[in-house]
Amino acid sequence: MAKKQKPARRSKRACDSARLSGGVGAVIDDLVIGNRILYVEGVVDSYGHISARDPRNPERFLMSRARAPGLVTADDIMEFGLDGEPVEREDRPIYSERFIHSEIYRARPDVMAVVHSHSPTVIPFSVTQVPLKPIRGPFLYPEVPVFDTRSAAGWTDLLISNPALGKALAHTLGQNSVALMRGHGDVVVASTVRKVVYRAIYTEANAKLLLQAKMLGGSITYLAPEEAAIIEKEQARDRRGHGSDRTWEMWRQEALARTGKLR
Amino acid sequence: MAKKQKPARRSKRACDSARLSGGVGAVIDDLVIGNRILYVEGVVDSYGHISARDPRNPERFLMSRARAPGLVTADDIMEFGLDGEPVEREDRPIYSERFIHSEIYRARPDVMAVVHSHSPTVIPFSVTQVPLKPIRGPFLYPEVPVFDTRSAAGWTDLLISNPALGKALAHTLGQNSVALMRGHGDVVVASTVRKVVYRAIYTEANAKLLLQAKMLGGSITYLAPEEAAIIEKEQARDRRGHGSDRTWEMWRQEALARTGKLR
Amino acid sequence: MAKKQKPARRSKRACDSARLSGGVGAVIDDLVIGNRILYVEGVVDSYGHISARDPRNPERFLMSRARAPGLVTADDIMEFGLDGEPVEREDRPIYSERFIHSEIYRARPDVMAVVHSHSPTVIPFSVTQVPLKPIRGPFLYPEVPVFDTRSAAGWTDLLISNPALGKALAHTLGQNSVALMRGHGDVVVASTVRKVVYRAIYTEANAKLLLQAKMLGGSITYLAPEEAAIIEKEQARDRRGHGSDRTWEMWRQEALARTGKLR
Amino acid sequence: MAKKQKPARRSKRACDSARLSGGVGAVIDDLVIGNRILYVEGVVDSYGHISARDPRNPERFLMSRARAPGLVTADDIMEFGLDGEPVEREDRPIYSERFIHSEIYRARPDVMAVVHSHSPTVIPFSVTQVPLKPIRGPFLYPEVPVFDTRSAAGWTDLLISNPALGKALAHTLGQNSVALMRGHGDVVVASTVRKVVYRAIYTEANAKLLLQAKMLGGSITYLAPEEAAIIEKEQARDRRGHGSDRTWEMWRQEALARTGKLR
Repeated sequence: MAKKQKPARRSKRACDSARLSGGVGAVIDDLVIGNRILYVEGVVDSYGHISARDPRNPERFLMSRARAPGLVTADDIMEFGLDGEPVEREDRPIYSERFIHSEIYRARPDVMAVVHSHSPTVIPFSVTQVPLKPIRGPFLYPEVPVFDTRSAAGWTDLLISNPALGKALAHTLGQNSVALMRGHGDVVVASTVRKVVYRAIYTEANAKLLLQAKMLGGSITYLAPEEAAIIEKEQARDRRGHGSDRTWEMWRQEALARTGKLR
Repeated sequence: MAKKQKPARRSKRACDSARLSGGVGAVIDDLVIGNRILYVEGVVDSYGHISARDPRNPERFLMSRARAPGLVTADDIMEFGLDGEPVEREDRPIYSERFIHSEIYRARPDVMAVVHSHSPTVIPFSVTQVPLKPIRGPFLYPEVPVFDTRSAAGWTDLLISNPALGKALAHTLGQNSVALMRGHGDVVVASTVRKVVYRAIYTEANAKLLLQAKMLGGSITYLAPEEAAIIEKEQARDRRGHGSDRTWEMWRQEALARTGKLR
Repeated sequence: MAKKQKPARRSKRACDSARLSGGVGAVIDDLVIGNRILYVEGVVDSYGHISARDPRNPERFLMSRARAPGLVTADDIMEFGLDGEPVEREDRPIYSERFIHSEIYRARPDVMAVVHSHSPTVIPFSVTQVPLKPIRGPFLYPEVPVFDTRSAAGWTDLLISNPALGKALAHTLGQNSVALMRGHGDVVVASTVRKVVYRAIYTEANAKLLLQAKMLGGSITYLAPEEAAIIEKEQARDRRGHGSDRTWEMWRQEALARTGKLR
Repeated sequence: MAKKQKPARRSKRACDSARLSGGVGAVIDDLVIGNRILYVEGVVDSYGHISARDPRNPERFLMSRARAPGLVTADDIMEFGLDGEPVEREDRPIYSERFIHSEIYRARPDVMAVVHSHSPTVIPFSVTQVPLKPIRGPFLYPEVPVFDTRSAAGWTDLLISNPALGKALAHTLGQNSVALMRGHGDVVVASTVRKVVYRAIYTEANAKLLLQAKMLGGSITYLAPEEAAIIEKEQARDRRGHGSDRTWEMWRQEALARTGKLR
């Protein structure tokens, strides 16, 4: 009878969950959903990645093994040190550009989450002299610097595939929230996974608005730095139903509907 | 046995329905569908809102609690006074910009429904000197004024988050059907929920047409005000199977297919 | 018992089917699918219509009652005379612009199917001086004339809502396959429903290609009239698996997957 | 009774499978999925085709019968000789432009897979003087030549419908990976099906990036040939979870979700 089943053996997954105390389970959940959202919203294609600093240990961060973001599950999430190397399961393929993440976490103690993407409307701004200024995105202040591997290291494959390039990119990013990478994409940082997803999506949206404003021609009224400061301060209040809390509920539902279960 | 169940207690929802006599149930249904349509048709993302004046009391209007429009259900609809404050359930998060709605309802007795959106192709017109003139949209006459919080109140977060800003926006809107909001979006008004959805969608569509005509270059033949007047008069006949009656049937089906049940 | 059911009464639908002998059933099937395809491929939104000349009687044509094309079923198809008036079921709402169809069937005995749409990328060409010339669409030769209600009838609502306007449009169309309608859309004609759907879709596609070529700048190599003539001759061979036979199989499947059953 | 069924006769499909030893089954699987991916990713519509050189016999290649790529199943795959003619099943409709494939396989022993498409954002580059240079696509070096049937053969229907035109196109392609075809589309080659799909998709993506960079105006920083060489060398390492291995997993899942089973 049903009552006489033998005790379920403790699954590897249950062990994982136990290991993941201290809030890290929630961060991994957000990381998986964040991967899916970035894919469904068109910020990443089969490339690009999102990471979160480990809430248990600021010297480590969490990120998927090398896999298309639209397919990432909790089982894919690995832990990395600030040297960019995996803490365990070294047999799995990992992102070549993990040094984007490791070096930014090292340089910016305030940053808890990082997105690297080939955000399609952002790239044109990385290869022209037109600055990606804010129409609506307050986090594009103070500025959106452009990093070029060519200036930093001469002829390369454009990938941030070692700590030195990661360090140079982090240096260009400085205290900003977004940096473009010439002919390649961008990097976006924030204080939570939900906020970095929000910023990555609205960086792409702002690029579309600016491109279209350019096409209309004439002078453009940008968001003023004074206005941006007020918006940022308001959003930092983290009110339920506002800001990234509202967007996350919507994007999460869309992402699950489009890409299926999380495990 | 099944037959001996005790009488179902009168559910909160049934009470709500009873309370909602006088045609308000139909308005709420349209409001919920309207939220979903605006999302599915790309006029709103996780932000933006749609309201309707309460058919039982012109001093009140109905609108969702603070939530992404694509997720709104009948249970989310709340009632607000013309001071922009909720009549009950004050514990719920509400839209900061509800004063767009309250002040327009106050200033424009003819307006029965209001949409505020970040309509993506409309925003570029709000930050350039190119006026959003009608290629096809008759309701864009007499004109589409541009409201700028900067002129009205100096440095702000661009949000219409108090009655004074709502009043200033309503003043800029005047007797027009659409006003742009600089670096932010637009506000659209009409005499029913179905018509305001229609106008919001075709404001975005007209912006796309005009942007593309601008890209082709040369002079543009706009809809003449005389033509617009004839179209508006014809559409006011509200014939079954025409105008917003035809579009609503299609958009409703798409919205339900994409966003699921209403409750 | 199941075996003793009384004989099924002959349903209204069965009667309809019997009435529809002489190949007209196949035309209605294509008309219904054609409505759905034009919607799914983005040529029509909730407006626009497609008709076919009645194969049993060249003085009549078949078209849906006034309804969004994406929702049209076989039951919606009605029969009209060349005066643009319905042969029966006069109680139903019908398209105001049915005179586009009636007057073209009257003027062009070779035309067996007509599409009227608000094809989004085509409209910009109707309000600028940039001619819609063929990059790939051979049927855009000899030319794509632009009809303007303003020249034909002064201030109107732009709709072809009477026989005189239909006649004027048919006159502008002449022996061409496509005519633009200023600030409104286009009309496309062909010798079958499948071909007119093909042409309507590739008129929109050609407009997109030309718009983008214009954005790149410089001179454009159009399809030569000599090349167009050879393509048209080749396509007239109607080979299985080629031309509109290949596209119909694909579009039909997409349309059914997106809009559901036909009845 | 069910148990007494006579032995299933060996189905034609089983025979096919037996016949397809030597790795060709895997190639056919990729070819079918590749067809679907190119459709779902918007590189082909109902036209365009993808082929693979037969791994058992370099003098033959595999390609679908004449059918929309989004519908292709394993049963549709046929075998062709380097004369462009089918080895068997000559009753089926076949692509008129199969000589694109046959002549490229003849001229380029290194090429194992070929895509021909009407890639929408690529075509504008084929009719203007703006070269399709790489923003991100290293395989666009050394150059992307433009083939024009008009130069090769005067007035034609633009189709590569005989060996002479195929040979002329192959000659224009030379040792490059991509050639444009004026007013028509492009041809893309690679060493595997997965890589040619990757290149076809990123050729379209690169065209979009370049078009947008052109719209922003001013000088453009292209990928340098030195950088392209390093990227190509790195990608040739074929690491698991990287390059076309990562994209294939994602695109395959999307294609199956959108277009259904393979048989």
